[in-house]
Amino acid sequence: MADQLEDVTIAILGGTGDQGNGLARRFALAGHRVLIGSRSADRAQAAAEALADAGRVEGGANADVAAEADLVIVAVPWDGHKALLTDLAGVLAGKIVVDCVNPLGFDKQGAYALPVEEGSAVQQAAAVLPGSRVVGAFHHVSAKLLLDPSVEAIDLDVLVLGDDREATDLVQALAARIPGVRGIYGGRLRNAHQVEAFTANLVAINRRYKAHAGIRVTDV
Amino acid sequence: MADQLEDVTIAILGGTGDQGNGLARRFALAGHRVLIGSRSADRAQAAAEALADAGRVEGGANADVAAEADLVIVAVPWDGHKALLTDLAGVLAGKIVVDCVNPLGFDKQGAYALPVEEGSAVQQAAAVLPGSRVVGAFHHVSAKLLLDPSVEAIDLDVLVLGDDREATDLVQALAARIPGVRGIYGGRLRNAHQVEAFTANLVAINRRYKAHAGIRVTDV
Repeated sequence: MADQLEDVTIAILGGTGDQGNGLARRFALAGHRVLIGSRSADRAQAAAEALADAGRVEGGANADVAAEADLVIVAVPWDGHKALLTDLAGVLAGKIVVDCVNPLGFDKQGAYALPVEEGSAVQQAAAVLPGSRVVGAFHHVSAKLLLDPSVEAIDLDVLVLGDDREATDLVQALAARIPGVRGIYGGRLRNAHQVEAFTANLVAINRRYKAHAGIRVTDV
Repeated sequence: MADQLEDVTIAILGGTGDQGNGLARRFALAGHRVLIGSRSADRAQAAAEALADAGRVEGGANADVAAEADLVIVAVPWDGHKALLTDLAGVLAGKIVVDCVNPLGFDKQGAYALPVEEGSAVQQAAAVLPGSRVVGAFHHVSAKLLLDPSVEAIDLDVLVLGDDREATDLVQALAARIPGVRGIYGGRLRNAHQVEAFTANLVAINRRYKAHAGIRVTDV
Protein backbone atom coordinates (compact mmCIF):
# COMPACT_ATOMS: atom_id res chain seq x y z
CA MET A 1 0.00 0.00 0.00
CA ALA A 2 1.18 3.50 -0.77
CA ASP A 3 2.31 5.66 2.16
CA GLN A 4 -0.16 8.47 1.56
CA LEU A 5 -3.78 8.19 0.59
CA GLU A 6 -3.22 10.36 -2.50
CA ASP A 7 -0.49 7.99 -3.68
CA VAL A 8 -2.88 5.03 -3.79
CA THR A 9 -3.29 3.67 -7.32
CA ILE A 10 -6.89 2.67 -7.86
CA ALA A 11 -8.05 0.04 -10.33
CA ILE A 12 -11.72 -0.09 -11.26
CA LEU A 13 -12.95 -3.43 -12.56
CA GLY A 14 -15.84 -2.69 -14.86
CA GLY A 15 -14.57 0.85 -15.21
CA THR A 16 -16.20 1.29 -18.60
CA GLY A 17 -19.68 1.06 -17.04
CA ASP A 18 -21.37 4.25 -15.82
CA GLN A 19 -20.77 3.77 -12.10
CA GLY A 20 -17.15 2.68 -12.48
CA ASN A 21 -16.46 5.36 -15.04
CA GLY A 22 -17.91 8.03 -12.82
CA LEU A 23 -15.78 6.91 -9.87
CA ALA A 24 -12.71 6.81 -12.14
CA ARG A 25 -13.34 10.41 -13.14
CA ARG A 26 -13.77 11.62 -9.57
CA PHE A 27 -10.70 9.81 -8.21
CA ALA A 28 -8.58 11.09 -11.10
CA LEU A 29 -9.81 14.61 -10.34
CA ALA A 30 -8.76 14.02 -6.73
CA GLY A 31 -5.23 13.32 -7.95
CA HIS A 32 -5.12 9.53 -7.89
CA ARG A 33 -3.63 7.41 -10.62
CA VAL A 34 -6.65 5.46 -11.86
CA LEU A 35 -6.61 2.27 -13.93
CA ILE A 36 -9.80 1.46 -15.77
CA GLY A 37 -10.34 -2.26 -16.21
CA SER A 38 -12.61 -4.03 -18.65
CA ARG A 39 -12.90 -7.42 -20.27
CA SER A 40 -11.62 -5.64 -23.36
CA ALA A 41 -8.31 -3.80 -22.95
CA ASP A 42 -9.17 -1.73 -26.03
CA ARG A 43 -12.45 -0.50 -24.59
CA ALA A 44 -10.71 0.25 -21.29
CA GLN A 45 -8.07 2.32 -23.07
CA ALA A 46 -10.72 4.21 -25.00
CA ALA A 47 -12.57 4.96 -21.76
CA ALA A 48 -9.32 6.12 -20.17
CA GLU A 49 -8.57 8.46 -23.06
CA ALA A 50 -12.07 9.94 -22.77
CA LEU A 51 -11.21 10.85 -19.15
CA ALA A 52 -7.78 12.29 -19.93
CA ASP A 53 -8.89 15.78 -18.88
CA ALA A 54 -9.63 14.52 -15.36
CA GLY A 55 -6.06 13.41 -14.64
CA ARG A 56 -3.93 10.29 -14.76
CA VAL A 57 -6.21 7.60 -16.19
CA GLU A 58 -5.00 4.47 -17.96
CA GLY A 59 -6.90 1.45 -19.25
CA GLY A 60 -6.26 -2.28 -19.50
CA ALA A 61 -7.69 -5.75 -19.06
CA ASN A 62 -9.27 -6.37 -15.65
CA ALA A 63 -6.54 -8.79 -14.55
CA ASP A 64 -3.73 -6.43 -15.57
CA VAL A 65 -5.09 -3.35 -13.85
CA ALA A 66 -5.90 -5.39 -10.72
CA ALA A 67 -2.29 -6.56 -10.54
CA GLU A 68 -0.93 -3.04 -10.76
CA ALA A 69 -3.21 -1.28 -8.27
CA ASP A 70 -3.05 -0.82 -4.50
CA LEU A 71 -6.80 -0.76 -4.15
CA VAL A 72 -9.33 -2.37 -6.47
CA ILE A 73 -12.92 -1.23 -6.91
CA VAL A 74 -15.39 -3.79 -8.23
CA ALA A 75 -18.04 -2.13 -10.39
CA VAL A 76 -18.96 -4.94 -12.74
CA PRO A 77 -22.49 -6.08 -13.56
CA TRP A 78 -23.89 -8.49 -10.95
CA ASP A 79 -24.17 -11.16 -13.62
CA GLY A 80 -20.45 -11.71 -14.01
CA HIS A 81 -19.45 -10.77 -10.47
CA LYS A 82 -18.66 -14.16 -8.95
CA ALA A 83 -16.91 -15.58 -12.01
CA LEU A 84 -14.64 -12.55 -12.45
CA LEU A 85 -13.61 -12.37 -8.81
CA THR A 86 -12.99 -16.10 -8.65
CA ASP A 87 -10.69 -15.76 -11.66
CA LEU A 88 -8.83 -12.84 -10.09
CA ALA A 89 -8.52 -14.25 -6.55
CA GLY A 90 -4.77 -14.74 -6.87
CA VAL A 91 -3.96 -11.28 -8.17
CA LEU A 92 -6.30 -9.63 -5.65
CA ALA A 93 -4.74 -11.37 -2.64
CA GLY A 94 -3.38 -8.91 -0.07
CA LYS A 95 -5.20 -5.95 -1.63
CA ILE A 96 -8.13 -3.91 -0.43
CA VAL A 97 -11.09 -4.79 -2.63
CA VAL A 98 -14.03 -2.39 -2.56
CA ASP A 99 -17.24 -3.91 -3.85
CA CYS A 100 -19.93 -1.49 -4.99
CA VAL A 101 -22.16 -3.90 -6.87
CA ASN A 102 -25.94 -3.80 -6.31
CA PRO A 103 -27.69 -7.08 -7.14
CA LEU A 104 -30.96 -5.71 -8.52
CA GLY A 105 -33.68 -6.89 -10.83
CA PHE A 106 -35.97 -4.61 -12.81
CA ASP A 107 -39.53 -5.03 -14.02
CA LYS A 108 -42.50 -2.80 -14.85
CA GLN A 109 -42.84 -1.79 -11.19
CA GLY A 110 -39.24 -0.69 -10.96
CA ALA A 111 -36.21 -2.15 -9.20
CA TYR A 112 -36.09 -4.86 -6.56
CA ALA A 113 -33.36 -6.66 -4.65
CA LEU A 114 -32.22 -10.03 -5.95
CA PRO A 115 -31.57 -12.83 -3.45
CA VAL A 116 -27.86 -13.57 -2.99
CA GLU A 117 -26.78 -16.92 -1.62
CA GLU A 118 -23.91 -15.41 0.36
CA GLY A 119 -26.17 -12.65 1.72
CA SER A 120 -24.86 -9.78 -0.40
CA ALA A 121 -22.53 -9.05 -3.29
CA VAL A 122 -19.76 -7.97 -0.94
CA GLN A 123 -20.12 -11.12 1.16
CA GLN A 124 -19.87 -13.12 -2.06
CA ALA A 125 -16.66 -11.23 -2.85
CA ALA A 126 -15.32 -12.00 0.63
CA ALA A 127 -16.18 -15.67 0.16
CA VAL A 128 -14.30 -16.03 -3.12
CA LEU A 129 -11.42 -13.70 -2.10
CA PRO A 130 -10.24 -15.12 1.23
CA GLY A 131 -6.84 -13.46 0.79
CA SER A 132 -8.20 -9.95 0.20
CA ARG A 133 -9.42 -7.24 2.55
CA VAL A 134 -12.96 -6.83 1.29
CA VAL A 135 -15.02 -3.70 1.95
CA GLY A 136 -18.42 -2.60 0.61
CA ALA A 137 -18.94 1.03 -0.42
CA PHE A 138 -20.17 3.46 -3.12
CA HIS A 139 -23.49 1.63 -3.59
CA HIS A 140 -25.65 4.75 -3.75
CA VAL A 141 -23.56 7.09 -5.87
CA SER A 142 -25.37 8.45 -8.89
CA ALA A 143 -23.31 7.72 -11.99
CA LYS A 144 -25.01 10.67 -13.63
CA LEU A 145 -23.80 13.08 -10.96
CA LEU A 146 -20.30 11.57 -10.88
CA LEU A 147 -19.98 12.10 -14.62
CA ASP A 148 -21.61 15.54 -14.86
CA PRO A 149 -18.91 18.21 -15.26
CA SER A 150 -21.34 20.87 -13.99
CA VAL A 151 -21.70 19.02 -10.67
CA GLU A 152 -18.74 19.85 -8.48
CA ALA A 153 -19.88 18.58 -5.08
CA ILE A 154 -22.12 15.57 -4.47
CA ASP A 155 -24.57 15.67 -1.56
CA LEU A 156 -24.11 12.11 -0.31
CA ASP A 157 -22.79 10.00 2.52
CA VAL A 158 -21.06 6.85 1.29
CA LEU A 159 -21.73 4.00 3.70
CA VAL A 160 -18.62 1.86 4.15
CA LEU A 161 -19.13 -1.70 5.34
CA GLY A 162 -16.55 -4.17 6.53
CA ASP A 163 -15.00 -6.20 9.32
CA ASP A 164 -11.43 -4.82 8.89
CA ARG A 165 -11.17 -1.47 10.66
CA GLU A 166 -8.01 -0.29 8.91
CA ALA A 167 -9.54 -1.06 5.51
CA THR A 168 -12.87 0.62 6.25
CA ASP A 169 -11.05 3.69 7.63
CA LEU A 170 -9.04 3.97 4.42
CA VAL A 171 -12.11 3.60 2.19
CA GLN A 172 -13.96 6.22 4.26
CA ALA A 173 -11.07 8.61 3.65
CA LEU A 174 -11.10 7.72 -0.03
CA ALA A 175 -14.83 8.45 -0.31
CA ALA A 176 -14.25 11.86 1.25
CA ARG A 177 -11.93 12.78 -1.60
CA ILE A 178 -15.02 13.27 -3.76
CA PRO A 179 -16.15 16.85 -3.04
CA GLY A 180 -19.26 16.94 -0.86
CA VAL A 181 -19.07 13.28 0.06
CA ARG A 182 -18.49 11.86 3.53
CA GLY A 183 -17.41 8.27 4.12
CA ILE A 184 -19.43 6.92 7.07
CA TYR A 185 -18.86 3.55 8.68
CA GLY A 186 -22.07 1.62 8.03
CA GLY A 187 -21.63 -1.70 9.82
CA ARG A 188 -20.19 -5.15 9.30
CA LEU A 189 -20.35 -7.16 6.11
CA ARG A 190 -23.27 -9.15 7.49
CA ASN A 191 -25.30 -5.93 7.33
CA ALA A 192 -24.32 -5.07 3.75
CA HIS A 193 -27.30 -6.67 2.04
CA GLN A 194 -29.71 -3.93 3.05
CA VAL A 195 -27.33 -1.20 1.89
CA GLU A 196 -26.98 -2.80 -1.54
CA ALA A 197 -30.72 -3.49 -1.74
CA PHE A 198 -31.57 0.06 -0.69
CA THR A 199 -30.45 1.15 -4.14
CA ALA A 200 -33.82 -0.21 -5.33
CA ASN A 201 -35.53 2.24 -2.98
CA LEU A 202 -33.43 5.07 -4.36
CA VAL A 203 -34.59 4.08 -7.85
CA ALA A 204 -38.20 4.33 -6.62
CA ILE A 205 -37.51 7.66 -4.93
CA ASN A 206 -35.83 9.00 -8.07
CA ARG A 207 -38.85 8.02 -10.12
CA ARG A 208 -41.39 9.53 -7.72
CA TYR A 209 -39.56 12.79 -7.07
CA LYS A 210 -37.66 13.13 -10.37
CA ALA A 211 -34.43 13.31 -8.36
CA HIS A 212 -30.93 11.86 -8.11
CA ALA A 213 -31.42 10.87 -4.51
CA GLY A 214 -28.78 9.79 -2.05
CA ILE A 215 -28.73 9.63 1.71
CA ARG A 216 -27.12 11.58 4.52
CA VAL A 217 -26.69 10.12 7.98
CA THR A 218 -27.91 12.56 10.64
CA ASP A 219 -26.29 13.26 14.03
CA VAL A 220 -22.89 12.09 12.72
CA MET B 1 -61.45 7.97 8.01
CA ALA B 2 -61.62 11.45 9.50
CA ASP B 3 -62.05 14.40 7.14
CA GLN B 4 -58.89 16.20 8.22
CA LEU B 5 -55.52 14.72 9.03
CA GLU B 6 -55.54 16.29 12.49
CA ASP B 7 -58.87 14.59 13.26
CA VAL B 8 -57.40 11.11 12.69
CA THR B 9 -57.50 9.02 15.86
CA ILE B 10 -54.34 6.95 16.08
CA ALA B 11 -54.02 3.65 17.93
CA ILE B 12 -50.56 2.33 18.70
CA LEU B 13 -50.34 -1.41 19.26
CA GLY B 14 -47.42 -1.99 21.59
CA GLY B 15 -47.67 1.62 22.67
CA THR B 16 -46.08 0.87 26.03
CA GLY B 17 -42.75 0.03 24.36
CA ASP B 18 -40.23 2.80 23.79
CA GLN B 19 -40.82 3.28 20.06
CA GLY B 20 -44.62 3.18 20.31
CA ASN B 21 -44.59 5.35 23.39
CA GLY B 22 -42.39 7.92 21.70
CA LEU B 23 -44.67 8.06 18.66
CA ALA B 24 -47.72 8.34 20.94
CA ARG B 25 -46.14 11.34 22.65
CA ARG B 26 -45.29 13.10 19.38
CA PHE B 27 -48.70 12.54 17.78
CA ALA B 28 -50.46 13.73 20.94
CA LEU B 29 -48.27 16.83 20.87
CA ALA B 30 -49.34 17.33 17.24
CA GLY B 31 -52.96 17.40 18.36
CA HIS B 32 -54.11 13.89 17.57
CA ARG B 33 -56.23 11.73 19.83
CA VAL B 34 -53.91 8.81 20.57
CA LEU B 35 -54.89 5.42 21.94
CA ILE B 36 -52.10 3.39 23.49
CA GLY B 37 -52.63 -0.34 23.13
CA SER B 38 -51.02 -3.14 25.10
CA ARG B 39 -51.74 -6.74 26.01
CA SER B 40 -52.56 -5.33 29.42
CA ALA B 41 -55.20 -2.59 29.48
CA ASP B 42 -53.90 -1.54 32.89
CA ARG B 43 -50.38 -0.97 31.66
CA ALA B 44 -51.72 0.88 28.62
CA GLN B 45 -53.74 3.17 30.85
CA ALA B 46 -50.74 3.83 33.08
CA ALA B 47 -48.65 4.68 29.99
CA ALA B 48 -51.40 7.00 28.76
CA GLU B 49 -51.56 8.80 32.10
CA ALA B 50 -47.79 9.30 32.01
CA LEU B 51 -48.23 11.12 28.69
CA ALA B 52 -51.17 13.27 29.85
CA ASP B 53 -49.11 16.47 29.51
CA ALA B 54 -48.62 15.79 25.78
CA GLY B 55 -52.33 15.89 24.92
CA ARG B 56 -55.24 13.51 24.46
CA VAL B 57 -53.85 10.07 25.25
CA GLU B 58 -55.94 7.09 26.39
CA GLY B 59 -55.00 3.47 26.99
CA GLY B 60 -56.65 0.10 26.48
CA ALA B 61 -56.23 -3.45 25.30
CA ASN B 62 -54.78 -3.77 21.80
CA ALA B 63 -58.04 -5.07 20.28
CA ASP B 64 -60.11 -2.30 21.85
CA VAL B 65 -57.91 0.58 20.75
CA ALA B 66 -57.59 -0.91 17.26
CA ALA B 67 -61.37 -0.99 16.95
CA GLU B 68 -61.74 2.65 17.94
CA ALA B 69 -58.98 4.18 15.77
CA ASP B 70 -58.90 5.42 12.19
CA LEU B 71 -55.26 4.51 11.73
CA VAL B 72 -53.34 1.82 13.61
CA ILE B 73 -49.58 1.82 14.16
CA VAL B 74 -47.97 -1.55 14.87
CA ALA B 75 -45.01 -1.17 17.25
CA VAL B 76 -45.01 -4.54 18.95
CA PRO B 77 -41.95 -6.75 19.40
CA TRP B 78 -41.20 -8.86 16.34
CA ASP B 79 -41.74 -11.99 18.40
CA GLY B 80 -45.49 -11.58 18.75
CA HIS B 81 -46.07 -9.67 15.50
CA LYS B 82 -47.73 -12.31 13.37
CA ALA B 83 -49.90 -13.78 16.13
CA LEU B 84 -51.24 -10.41 17.23
CA LEU B 85 -52.08 -9.21 13.74
CA THR B 86 -53.71 -12.52 12.84
CA ASP B 87 -55.92 -12.18 15.93
CA LEU B 88 -56.86 -8.60 15.04
CA ALA B 89 -57.41 -9.10 11.29
CA GLY B 90 -61.17 -8.59 11.61
CA VAL B 91 -61.02 -5.39 13.60
CA LEU B 92 -58.24 -3.96 11.41
CA ALA B 93 -60.14 -4.56 8.15
CA GLY B 94 -60.65 -1.34 6.20
CA LYS B 95 -58.18 0.62 8.28
CA ILE B 96 -54.74 1.96 7.44
CA VAL B 97 -52.21 -0.15 9.33
CA VAL B 98 -48.71 1.30 9.66
CA ASP B 99 -46.10 -1.28 10.50
CA CYS B 100 -42.88 0.02 12.05
CA VAL B 101 -41.47 -3.26 13.33
CA ASN B 102 -37.80 -4.11 12.70
CA PRO B 103 -37.05 -7.83 12.78
CA LEU B 104 -33.57 -7.74 14.32
CA GLY B 105 -31.35 -10.07 16.27
CA PHE B 106 -28.58 -8.98 18.61
CA ASP B 107 -25.31 -10.62 19.59
CA LYS B 108 -21.88 -9.53 20.78
CA GLN B 109 -21.16 -7.94 17.39
CA GLY B 110 -24.30 -5.83 17.48
CA ALA B 111 -27.55 -6.00 15.55
CA TYR B 112 -28.36 -7.97 12.42
CA ALA B 113 -31.42 -8.50 10.26
CA LEU B 114 -33.49 -11.63 10.87
CA PRO B 115 -34.81 -13.53 7.87
CA VAL B 116 -38.56 -13.12 7.38
CA GLU B 117 -40.51 -15.68 5.38
CA GLU B 118 -42.78 -13.06 3.83
CA GLY B 119 -39.79 -10.82 3.02
CA SER B 120 -40.32 -8.19 5.71
CA ALA B 121 -42.44 -7.45 8.76
CA VAL B 122 -44.73 -5.19 6.76
CA GLN B 123 -45.20 -7.82 4.06
CA GLN B 124 -46.09 -10.28 6.80
CA ALA B 125 -48.65 -7.77 8.05
CA ALA B 126 -50.05 -7.40 4.53
CA ALA B 127 -50.27 -11.18 4.21
CA VAL B 128 -52.27 -11.67 7.40
CA LEU B 129 -54.36 -8.49 6.96
CA PRO B 130 -55.77 -8.81 3.44
CA GLY B 131 -58.61 -6.40 4.30
CA SER B 132 -56.33 -3.61 5.58
CA ARG B 133 -54.35 -0.91 3.83
CA VAL B 134 -50.86 -1.78 5.02
CA VAL B 135 -48.01 0.72 4.96
CA GLY B 136 -44.47 0.54 6.38
CA ALA B 137 -42.99 3.58 8.12
CA PHE B 138 -41.23 4.98 11.21
CA HIS B 139 -38.56 2.23 11.22
CA HIS B 140 -35.62 4.52 11.95
CA VAL B 141 -37.06 6.88 14.55
CA SER B 142 -35.01 7.03 17.73
CA ALA B 143 -37.28 6.28 20.67
CA LYS B 144 -34.90 8.24 22.84
CA LEU B 145 -35.30 11.39 20.74
CA LEU B 146 -39.08 10.96 20.47
CA LEU B 147 -39.35 10.78 24.26
CA ASP B 148 -36.84 13.50 25.15
CA PRO B 149 -38.71 16.68 26.17
CA SER B 150 -35.60 18.74 25.38
CA VAL B 151 -35.66 17.61 21.73
CA GLU B 152 -38.19 19.66 19.85
CA ALA B 153 -37.35 18.85 16.24
CA ILE B 154 -36.02 15.53 14.96
CA ASP B 155 -33.55 15.52 12.07
CA LEU B 156 -34.96 12.56 10.12
CA ASP B 157 -36.74 11.53 6.97
CA VAL B 158 -39.30 8.81 7.57
CA LEU B 159 -39.38 6.44 4.61
CA VAL B 160 -42.94 5.39 3.82
CA LEU B 161 -43.40 2.15 1.91
CA GLY B 162 -46.53 0.80 0.32
CA ASP B 163 -48.51 -0.10 -2.76
CA ASP B 164 -51.55 2.11 -1.97
CA ARG B 165 -50.82 5.68 -3.01
CA GLU B 166 -53.58 7.30 -0.96
CA ALA B 167 -52.43 5.46 2.16
CA THR B 168 -48.73 6.26 1.70
CA ASP B 169 -49.59 9.92 1.03
CA LEU B 170 -51.54 10.09 4.28
CA VAL B 171 -48.76 8.44 6.29
CA GLN B 172 -46.21 10.81 4.75
CA ALA B 173 -48.33 13.73 5.91
CA LEU B 174 -48.66 12.14 9.34
CA ALA B 175 -44.88 11.73 9.65
CA ALA B 176 -44.44 15.41 8.83
CA ARG B 177 -46.51 16.33 11.89
CA ILE B 178 -43.46 15.50 14.01
CA PRO B 179 -41.36 18.69 14.00
CA GLY B 180 -38.28 18.36 11.79
CA VAL B 181 -39.45 15.14 10.13
CA ARG B 182 -40.30 14.67 6.47
CA GLY B 183 -42.32 11.73 5.20
CA ILE B 184 -40.68 10.51 1.98
CA TYR B 185 -42.11 7.83 -0.27
CA GLY B 186 -39.57 5.00 -0.13
CA GLY B 187 -40.87 2.39 -2.54
CA ARG B 188 -43.22 -0.57 -2.69
CA LEU B 189 -43.74 -3.16 0.02
CA ARG B 190 -41.44 -5.56 -1.83
CA ASN B 191 -38.61 -3.13 -1.07
CA ALA B 192 -39.42 -2.79 2.63
CA HIS B 193 -37.03 -5.46 3.90
CA GLN B 194 -33.95 -3.36 3.42
CA VAL B 195 -35.49 -0.37 5.16
CA GLU B 196 -36.38 -2.47 8.20
CA ALA B 197 -32.99 -4.21 8.15
CA PHE B 198 -31.14 -0.90 7.82
CA THR B 199 -32.02 -0.27 11.45
CA ALA B 200 -29.21 -2.73 12.24
CA ASN B 201 -26.80 -0.42 10.39
CA LEU B 202 -28.07 2.55 12.37
CA VAL B 203 -27.35 0.58 15.55
CA ALA B 204 -23.77 0.06 14.30
CA ILE B 205 -23.45 3.73 13.35
CA ASN B 206 -24.79 4.81 16.75
CA ARG B 207 -22.23 2.62 18.47
CA ARG B 208 -19.30 3.82 16.34
CA TYR B 209 -20.14 7.53 16.43
CA LYS B 210 -21.98 7.68 19.78
CA ALA B 211 -24.94 9.18 17.94
CA HIS B 212 -28.69 8.85 17.50
CA ALA B 213 -28.39 8.53 13.76
CA GLY B 214 -31.15 8.74 11.22
CA ILE B 215 -31.15 9.37 7.50
CA ARG B 216 -32.08 12.22 5.21
CA VAL B 217 -32.79 11.69 1.53
CA THR B 218 -30.86 14.17 -0.60
CA ASP B 219 -32.12 15.96 -3.73
CA VAL B 220 -35.75 15.56 -2.59
